[in-house]
Amino acid sequence: MKVGVIGGGQLARMMIPAAIDLGIDLRVMAETGGMSAGLAATMIGDYRIVDEVLRFCSSVDVVTFDHEHVPQSVLRAMIEAGVVVRPGPDALGVAQDKILMRRTLEGLGMPVPRWAAVESAAELGTFLEDHRGVAVVKTARGGYDGKGVRIVRAAHEADDWFAALAEDARGGALLVEELVDFRRELAQSVARRPSGEVRGWPVVESIQQDGVCAEVIAPAPSSAGRIADAALEIAVGIAEGLDVTGVLAVELFETTDERILVNELAMRPHNSGHWSLDGSATSQFEQHLRAVLDVPLGATGLRQPWAVMVNVLGGPEGGSMSDRYASALANHPGARIHNYGKSPRAGRKIGHVTAVGDDLATVAYEARATAAELSV
Amino acid sequence: MKVGVIGGGQLARMMIPAAIDLGIDLRVMAETGGMSAGLAATMIGDYRIVDEVLRFCSSVDVVTFDHEHVPQSVLRAMIEAGVVVRPGPDALGVAQDKILMRRTLEGLGMPVPRWAAVESAAELGTFLEDHRGVAVVKTARGGYDGKGVRIVRAAHEADDWFAALAEDARGGALLVEELVDFRRELAQSVARRPSGEVRGWPVVESIQQDGVCAEVIAPAPSSAGRIADAALEIAVGIAEGLDVTGVLAVELFETTDERILVNELAMRPHNSGHWSLDGSATSQFEQHLRAVLDVPLGATGLRQPWAVMVNVLGGPEGGSMSDRYASALANHPGARIHNYGKSPRAGRKIGHVTAVGDDLATVAYEARATAAELSV
Repeated sequence: MKVGVIGGGQLARMMIPAAIDLGIDLRVMAETGGMSAGLAATMIGDYRIVDEVLRFCSSVDVVTFDHEHVPQSVLRAMIEAGVVVRPGPDALGVAQDKILMRRTLEGLGMPVPRWAAVESAAELGTFLEDHRGVAVVKTARGGYDGKGVRIVRAAHEADDWFAALAEDARGGALLVEELVDFRRELAQSVARRPSGEVRGWPVVESIQQDGVCAEVIAPAPSSAGRIADAALEIAVGIAEGLDVTGVLAVELFETTDERILVNELAMRPHNSGHWSLDGSATSQFEQHLRAVLDVPLGATGLRQPWAVMVNVLGGPEGGSMSDRYASALANHPGARIHNYGKSPRAGRKIGHVTAVGDDLATVAYEARATAAELSV
Repeated sequence: MKVGVIGGGQLARMMIPAAIDLGIDLRVMAETGGMSAGLAATMIGDYRIVDEVLRFCSSVDVVTFDHEHVPQSVLRAMIEAGVVVRPGPDALGVAQDKILMRRTLEGLGMPVPRWAAVESAAELGTFLEDHRGVAVVKTARGGYDGKGVRIVRAAHEADDWFAALAEDARGGALLVEELVDFRRELAQSVARRPSGEVRGWPVVESIQQDGVCAEVIAPAPSSAGRIADAALEIAVGIAEGLDVTGVLAVELFETTDERILVNELAMRPHNSGHWSLDGSATSQFEQHLRAVLDVPLGATGLRQPWAVMVNVLGGPEGGSMSDRYASALANHPGARIHNYGKSPRAGRKIGHVTAVGDDLATVAYEARATAAELSV
């Protein structure tokens, strides 16, 4: 059982323990030396270059991804060469282009914010007039962690992005959406095997700061029943509708008028599912490997009633998480620490902390206090 | 934080996920290529050769072990070269020689079976006469998993071992002990840091088959109170008395007349503690790394009321565990599988399964049934 992962970031890193448990030979094609998943790196290569990718693929039984940036041209060449690619190019394409994503989800009957693809300031202006003068503009490709997302109140406020598109040989449009009046953000992850088995984790609440996921509460408080059912139905519907294999994470809005809308998709383990390493019977990383290998999926229930995950970001002073272990571990012996082994640039996700237990207030306090002590 | 592990077996392998979590640079000196901990192997070397060991040690901050076989002469050379060795040679020496172990434990006031060091069949005969005609004979060095242990009822039944000792330049004696009339076997693990902090897990019941650990129940049923207190007091007393750093596992007899006696010691993560990977807030592998690095220890409580661990042994047909995943994982989605990535010789420990939950009967059934399905 040899699984290849394209990309050497922390998602690939967190697949390594699951691979060790199950006796899977995990091989990573990393972008450079010394990356987060460097321990399992068997090749340094450029995921945009077909020959390098195919050379890597020849050493494994199935290929999956640490990120969604492998170009469609490379993905198609992999398929033509007979590589088993999970998720496949069609599914990944939907995660790579937000306009295609909105159009496809609408075609599946999924609830989405009102949206349009706009190619000029004039078209953006028209959308603003129709939506109380405010909207969210997103670049269709390449955004992450709040980058490529902007709230606008005037037609000219995306002129730089229109100018960039005019110079991009691929052309294209910007996605504009209504500014959703939401009560909170949720996330629903599921895993799906090629043979059809699908399992979902409990829906979680995701708390963002400056467009970056800061904290996740599993399960989302007061979500049992209608909200959990709706979230799971949406994620299963998308996974089946797009033929996703592996983990699919669906970011959702719970609106103030009690609707659930789809915000974003990720076709890989996702920050909103990191709690599952310590809080679920099967982590998203193990489940992703099981799913892409098409072996039966694991149980996804909570091990204890609550889990709270808090990200640790690099600070301006540049110290590493482990510099702070002496006090953080002494004060929080029950907190579960995950250090990504990354150089701590300011604002970069360098690790996370999870606490689990019976009382949400205690669990949340433990996770937040530990993460604060480890943040440098 | 660079930790070196001498030995590339499954104990070193199971340290890798903990090292990934905490961002520890774990480096393994393996005996050969393709070993269980091969992913973290940075050197192939012979642990009996000082020069090779010192070369490995120069690449790490602290050195620990996958096994207890490194000779005292090599351990002393490491200390002279300024290597930080945890546990240290004096402590390891007690685990390496069962006669020294019995003598040292007695000196610490620990409860042990009645014993003697015997150098001839005549001396063994005298011991048998004094102990109702039956005794357990053990080779002082090199035994494991029931090897080097024999129940004897006549003075000549250890003649082959006496003959081997006569040809061994180190000379020595055999250990003979009373055959303890025990109700069950227990095991108590603790971890101790150089700075003195000690934490123990709940005492567990260990069930042997043919001298090999088959199953572990955590916590040991009906152990709360006197038994748990006595077991923990013994293990802490040994860890402190011998200045053990890292994990110490103490195998115990609970006798039919309600005494707790020390059977064996292991100064490393131990099969009786594998349940902690899935059942405890901190696994023995993570705790061992924390302890040898002298950073604060993690919480050792149970995540759920019961955990049962069952070993998977290689069978005569030689298939690997993963050949059986399709049915085993489908039938037991909640079982936690640990595959050591070892070639499956008959009777060899090739993995283990742990189940956790609220009801012991259910948990034990799940763990046993999954292990049976995976055994080939």
